[in-house]
Amino acid sequence: MSEQVTPDWIAVDWGTTHLRVWAMQGGTQLAHAQSDDGMAKLERDQFEGALLKLIEGWLGAGTMPVIACGMVGARQGWVEAPYTAVPAKPDHSQHALPVCDDLRLHVRVIPGLKQASPADVMRGEETQIAGFLALNSGWDGVICLPGTHTKWAHVSAGEVVSFQTYMTGEQFELLSTSSVLRHSVDTDGWDKPAFEEALADSLSRPERISANLFNLRACDLLNGQSKEVARARLSGLLIGAELAAARPFWLGQQVAVVGANNLSQIYADALAAQGVPATVADGARMALAGLQAAYRLVKETA
Amino acid sequence: MSEQVTPDWIAVDWGTTHLRVWAMQGGTQLAHAQSDDGMAKLERDQFEGALLKLIEGWLGAGTMPVIACGMVGARQGWVEAPYTAVPAKPDHSQHALPVCDDLRLHVRVIPGLKQASPADVMRGEETQIAGFLALNSGWDGVICLPGTHTKWAHVSAGEVVSFQTYMTGEQFELLSTSSVLRHSVDTDGWDKPAFEEALADSLSRPERISANLFNLRACDLLNGQSKEVARARLSGLLIGAELAAARPFWLGQQVAVVGANNLSQIYADALAAQGVPATVADGARMALAGLQAAYRLVKETA
Repeated sequence: MSEQVTPDWIAVDWGTTHLRVWAMQGGTQLAHAQSDDGMAKLERDQFEGALLKLIEGWLGAGTMPVIACGMVGARQGWVEAPYTAVPAKPDHSQHALPVCDDLRLHVRVIPGLKQASPADVMRGEETQIAGFLALNSGWDGVICLPGTHTKWAHVSAGEVVSFQTYMTGEQFELLSTSSVLRHSVDTDGWDKPAFEEALADSLSRPERISANLFNLRACDLLNGQSKEVARARLSGLLIGAELAAARPFWLGQQVAVVGANNLSQIYADALAAQGVPATVADGARMALAGLQAAYRLVKETA
Repeated sequence: MSEQVTPDWIAVDWGTTHLRVWAMQGGTQLAHAQSDDGMAKLERDQFEGALLKLIEGWLGAGTMPVIACGMVGARQGWVEAPYTAVPAKPDHSQHALPVCDDLRLHVRVIPGLKQASPADVMRGEETQIAGFLALNSGWDGVICLPGTHTKWAHVSAGEVVSFQTYMTGEQFELLSTSSVLRHSVDTDGWDKPAFEEALADSLSRPERISANLFNLRACDLLNGQSKEVARARLSGLLIGAELAAARPFWLGQQVAVVGANNLSQIYADALAAQGVPATVADGARMALAGLQAAYRLVKETA
């Protein structure tokens, strides 16, 4: 039997492919659980059940406050929550979600951010940014949040001023598993020099990305290039093209990379090679810090 | 009952997603048939059956010569046929494929082309190029063959001098049907001004392709952009990036576009907008002309 946990609120980071929950007592983490019940695999009426599956053991006699961020609030999510327009401070206004079990659950979701021009949206990363700013008071600069859809956000005086989304992670996934390159690219393994060479090539000549992709297949067919090398080169080509397009964000800026540790380190190394030192912070930890900041605000304004 | 057809040879264009056959008497086409038994959906031992399904009615008492081109000769095909290294004239040397029904069938495949640096390969397009050159004697210039993997080939004095492959068609397919953009992009429909604007934007700033893709999703979520407009814009962004990368091929050159008619016209229009007039020729017809040229060579050297 696991120890009885009696939180006074529950923090939820609910993305496209994952669901992470924390049992919290004020600012203290009592327990953590996660599942792969991400937004993408759930129908609208399955969200409450997926959440209860993880947190039911933490519920008591009263109504439990639950604060969530991420794609749970997207059009394909539990319910579509609004966006706050940038420039904006991290917005801790919260929107109640409809629950059946309303005697035990009070679930709220943090709004995403939107930008009018160029049109762009984020959901979940705004909470990681809020967490990073809560832990690094007064920080100004650029935050890069690598993932399926990598975000670059310009932060100044506590506000997100502007941001831009890159589909690099999703392109890597599709090209390496669903295109003709799947025959030539490994699902894991890494070759650092191959990554660095492809990255530098793509950064200096990003307009050639479209010509360089099929080369990965031909180098396998003609030269027996290893699938690990191809994987690292594909990643280098795509991240190089992203860094080239994002140059106005990072050039001459203070940069923080917030995300999964392995991927963040790859971005940080790539930026370092361009003479831009970057701080790395764990994405899940920043999400929890952002949810805590939101909870404090609820308490203050309650 | 269909009329009895008695060809003296059979031409076969066998690509990744299609199988096209022609019953031929010398240079005259007696009948045509096709199926979607492309290379991608067949196991090695299923090729002969897929072919027989289309041509069995054309077989007589003797052994029928069959000449094939395309991905049927790829590593994932019926049997891996060799490549001829460029620079090279279209190579009509042919490689016999192993058949069970060897009393009725003698199947040969035309080799593909390979390039050492940058590493590249083609299978099938070399036969379309041979067909185009057979019908346009003495033609020098650049041939663009748009499709799943678009090829640009520099042709001079009857030789393919160099070529380059772009994964534009496959990227369009994956992004529009398997990425987050599938929620915002139609499977058909077209908006010409939207295509042209995206094309021009991508051609002049190809390094921004990685930043422009997600914008298609955001314009749907925030501005209700129509899915037809998004489809045309996605195509424009990708073809624009390809044209930017392929500029060394087409700039100041005589260009022919060989492929499916709709797609070829899109490329020809895009090139015309850059001040490069292009001839358009039907890909299947050029493949047949190339197969005929190969058959003539077999007869001459027999």
